[in-house]
This record gives sequence, structure tokens and C-alpha cells, in this order.
Amino acid sequence: MKQVRIGLLGCGTVGGGFVRLLEAERGRIRNRYGMDLVISGILVRDVAKKRHGLEMSALRCLLTDRALDILDGECDLVVEVIGGVHTAGALIRRAIARGRNIVTANKALLASSGTELFAAAARMGVRIGFEASVCGGVPIIGALRGSLAGDSIESISGVLNGTSNYVLCRMAEGLALEAAIRRAQEAGFAEEDPTLDISGEDAAQKLAILAQIAFGTPASRSSVRGIESITGEDLANAAASGFAIRQVAEARRVAGSVRLVVEPRRLPLDHPFARVLDEQNAVLIRGRASGEIGLSGPGAGSMPTAVAILGDVLALGRSVTAGRWARRFVPAGIPTAALT
Amino acid sequence: MKQVRIGLLGCGTVGGGFVRLLEAERGRIRNRYGMDLVISGILVRDVAKKRHGLEMSALRCLLTDRALDILDGECDLVVEVIGGVHTAGALIRRAIARGRNIVTANKALLASSGTELFAAAARMGVRIGFEASVCGGVPIIGALRGSLAGDSIESISGVLNGTSNYVLCRMAEGLALEAAIRRAQEAGFAEEDPTLDISGEDAAQKLAILAQIAFGTPASRSSVRGIESITGEDLANAAASGFAIRQVAEARRVAGSVRLVVEPRRLPLDHPFARVLDEQNAVLIRGRASGEIGLSGPGAGSMPTAVAILGDVLALGRSVTAGRWARRFVPAGIPTAALT
Repeated sequence: MKQVRIGLLGCGTVGGGFVRLLEAERGRIRNRYGMDLVISGILVRDVAKKRHGLEMSALRCLLTDRALDILDGECDLVVEVIGGVHTAGALIRRAIARGRNIVTANKALLASSGTELFAAAARMGVRIGFEASVCGGVPIIGALRGSLAGDSIESISGVLNGTSNYVLCRMAEGLALEAAIRRAQEAGFAEEDPTLDISGEDAAQKLAILAQIAFGTPASRSSVRGIESITGEDLANAAASGFAIRQVAEARRVAGSVRLVVEPRRLPLDHPFARVLDEQNAVLIRGRASGEIGLSGPGAGSMPTAVAILGDVLALGRSVTAGRWARRFVPAGIPTAALT
Repeated sequence: MKQVRIGLLGCGTVGGGFVRLLEAERGRIRNRYGMDLVISGILVRDVAKKRHGLEMSALRCLLTDRALDILDGECDLVVEVIGGVHTAGALIRRAIARGRNIVTANKALLASSGTELFAAAARMGVRIGFEASVCGGVPIIGALRGSLAGDSIESISGVLNGTSNYVLCRMAEGLALEAAIRRAQEAGFAEEDPTLDISGEDAAQKLAILAQIAFGTPASRSSVRGIESITGEDLANAAASGFAIRQVAEARRVAGSVRLVVEPRRLPLDHPFARVLDEQNAVLIRGRASGEIGLSGPGAGSMPTAVAILGDVLALGRSVTAGRWARRFVPAGIPTAALT
């Protein structure tokens, strides 16, 4: 049985979900993929803090507040679910420098430092899995990097921010913006400070990551407008004429460059995006040869995001094991990148 | 620049589409992925036959009617688009025995001999890409094997047969079954003998492949009912009460086994499958942790299918190159499976 040792950085909502998912699926994964996934350490800020589902678990003794215990210890890949740019970025850089494969859900970090991190990973012959960074459990990154990689993508559009969509759905039912945001917070979909969601910034970061994969170049022009100015009257007027309002993010190839737009749009009720309810996400990809492909599903939430992380862990787990063989038997001087 | 040599078996609708797609995308793939995809030979039955788009092409001189020219010649992976079970199966078995990676669109072959072929591939340390075998350009295989592999799948359901769906849509507009089938044939969606489509057999084969990936075990019970018995009156009655009729394929885990059903179902007009029009396909996957994920797109057609093939070629192209390095430098006795 191949063993893959996972160093987990962070154990909040998503990290805790990942720990629970791994406990639930570990037996199935051993049987199905012949791979034993073992958590070798869990980095947390406060080792003493109570953690749901971890109190009685043997995993409790893996908690540490010293990052180097994990990064310099015995592990094959590092899962980063701390979030934020500074600490997470520093830890990922060190993990890459130590030759670890990375799985991250960190959209903000990839949007700000993706190019640098991927270059560093390529130099070290390691890989970065980031399915969880965009649209939670919707397998959009895998589709763009895998099955659709052979096609020239013409446009990507989507409802990429679950919070905004949840708020618009509540406003269409009669709530004011502030009340709708409070409802989203109570339901656990909106952060304490929902500015990034409502302003369109969060959708723009996700769109930038998708566009980079789809078009192979960073976007050259972008325009981001949030839903702050949408009123109940706008939604009622739209509904009266058979329309819904959605925060739509769209990346399009135009005259040699890539243009990103995030804005509220009036859409006919039979448009696929008008049918996206609550915190769901949906993406339409238009390829020159493949036509229009649609993906939809839960855009956030600890368990769907944990599934995306675990999918990347399994994919990298295969190459980790291959890489370990390779590093052991290949003469020095052969670039390990060729083997992973 | 890494060169990947492709032996192409078959040059009909899908094979011709693949050749055209590769010509269109080859430059982008060289730039983007640093991989030079070269067709090393094309197996056809009749070398002299005129082929759309190939008349003036340098590829013309690659045509051969001798399979061994390709299988025993210099190639890194074999793309099989002949279809059918006997010839295609024999050629794929030989290619695997020669250590070639395989990409195939052959649903019937995988449904009948998948277990044997995957076992042979595992023994030889080669891989089989088969995204194109189910739902054309819809990246469903990649999603199940990749991003969703960490979740326990509870059910998969879908509109998996474009011909039946096209026929039902025309019948809902007033055509009789036979006239609707003729229309599908004129539009190029239905075979000369559409029995497999109309009877539900084609959807059942696709569902069996999806269920095997999702559940890891072959289905134990199945029930297949086609759309032959659906009349214009059924469709009119359904429409009058706000329903549409669709050929739905569903695989579900029940009491330790997996049950497959293909049958015509009355669905409310706001059901995702009721909205699937003409030759489109749609799939809903329900995972224990990820919730409900939807995928939709063109279920057939030469170009979408060619995109699925090229995506697999790119993925295997990476491991081909790694494998070539590995085979060259790894001492005998190390299983190459560990490296691919």
C-alpha cells in the first residue's frame, strides 16, 4: 500500500471539513486507489482550542503551532487552508522550496502571486493543485486544465459568487440589501465583512484565475461593478417583465487580449444563470470546437470545498509516489520535473 | 520541445475531426504546453478514398491500411476511433501489449471488455483515456475520476442519448416517431439504424461506464426501457399538465449493490433534464459531501468528441514523456506502473 503523508496547514471551516471527509473516505480510498492517506501534522494558531469532531480523535496529537514541524518534517504534500496572503504565501513558498507538492484553496493568494508560485513550483518539479480555489465543489479547474485543454476557449461566464447570488435571491423576495446580507450571514454563506462578495471583487478574483487557465495569458482589461446599487425596485421591475438580476462574471478574448467584466445583469428567466438559486454557482464555457459546456453546483461550503481538495490530493498522491520512486532511482542530473 | 507521436486508428467522422482539431490547435499547444503533437500514421480501410480536409494535406502520406505499420512503428500513444468491438479491440490489445498508452472513444468496447482492457493496461504500466466515450464534449469522466474522486457518489442521472432527446423534442412539436427519427438522421444525429439509441441500449452502455467509475463496482441490476412506446398523445398530455418526457438514465447505490435504470420519465418543465433540448446531454451527480453537481453540453458531434480525445492525448502526452525518461533511466525491475 502506497502511503501519502499530508501536512495540513490550517484547521478552520475548510480544514476541519477536510479532516472529517478524509476520515469518512479513507477506507474507500485505500480499497479503490491502493493509497493510504495519512495526516502527518496539522498547523493551527491555538493548539488548546476546541475543534468540532477532533476532540476525541487520534488526530488531536498531530496539532502543532510550529509550521516547521510540518514543512521540514516527513510529508509528501502540503494542503494549505489558512487563507489570506501573507502567512499562507510564506508557508507555501517554503514548502515548494522543500520540494513538496501543494494543494490550496487560496484564491486570493493565487490571484495575487499565482504566476510567481507556479514558476517556483516548475523550477522545483512540484505541482500545485487548486481546484478548491474557485467555485468550491464545481469541477471547473479540472475541466479547463483537462478535458477542455485541447480546445481554444472563446469565453467563460458565470455566477461565481454564492453570497451575492443568495443576497439577490432574498432581495427578489422583498428583503432590503442589508437585511438580505444579514440573512446570508446567519445562513453561514457571508463573511462578517461581505464587502469582497458584494463589490464583485471575489468574483473578479475567481474569474482572473479561470481566465488565466483558459486563455493562457493574464487579462489585460477588467471592469468590476458590484450589486450595492441594486434596489428592491430594480428586482421587482425586472421580475415584472420576465427577468432576473444576477451578478455575472465574464471573460472574453477580444482582439488579441482578454477582457474581464463583473457586473449585475438583467437576464431572461429561462437563461441558465437566472435559474441559479441561493448560494449555487454556475459556469458556461464556450470553446471553438466544443461549443457550450455548462457546470453547476455548490460554490462554497466546507464539505464541497473539502471534496475539491481531496480530489487534488489523490491526483498529486499518484505523482508523489511516482516521484518518490523516481527520486530514489534516477541518477542525479535528470530533472525531476520530467517525472512528475 | 517534447515530441509526442500519435498513431491514429480510423479516420471517419471523429478521426477526421481530430485531425482538423489538431491542425488548428497544434501551434497553441506547442506554445502553451511545450508539447509537439505529431501524427505518425493513420490507419484506414481504403487509402485511396477521398477525405474531407485531407486531400491537400501533408498528412495524406501518413495513411496506411496496415495496422502493424502503426502499432509496431514509432509512436508514443494510440488514438482509436474505429468504433465497433472486434477490430478495434484486437488493435487496442496489441497496442497495450506493445506498451502504448491508449485514447479511445469506443463506448461499446469499454462496456463489453473494459475490465479486461484496464487490467491489461495496468499490467503493462500504460493508461487508457476514454473521456470521449461518454457524452462527447461534456467533461464527465474527468470530473468523476478527478475532482470528485474523493467523494462517495450516491447517484448519477442524466440525459445521455442525444438522438433520443432530439427525437422526443421533434415529437413534442407534432412529428410522429418515424418522421422524428428521419429528421434526426437528416440532421446527422442518428445512425442509419437508430435501434441502439431509441431502445435505450446506448444510454445504458454510457451509464454502465459512468457507474463503474463512480461506484468502483460493476452494476448488479439493470432495467432498460426505450422510447419506442411514447406517442405524440403522451407528449401532448404531459405538456398540457406542465411536464416534458425525457429518456433518463440513472445509476444509484442501493443496499450494497448498484442499480441502473434507463426509461422515459415525465418531468416538470423546471427540472434540469426537461430543459435539455435537441441533441444536448446533461448529467447530475449527487455526492455525499459535495451535494449535487451538474454538467451539460453537446453529447455528440465530431468536433466536441475530438476535443475530449485531444484532452486525453495532452494528459497522456505528459506521462508518455515522463515514461520515456523513466524507461530510459530506471534500472530493470522497477515496475514502470509506479512512474506513470
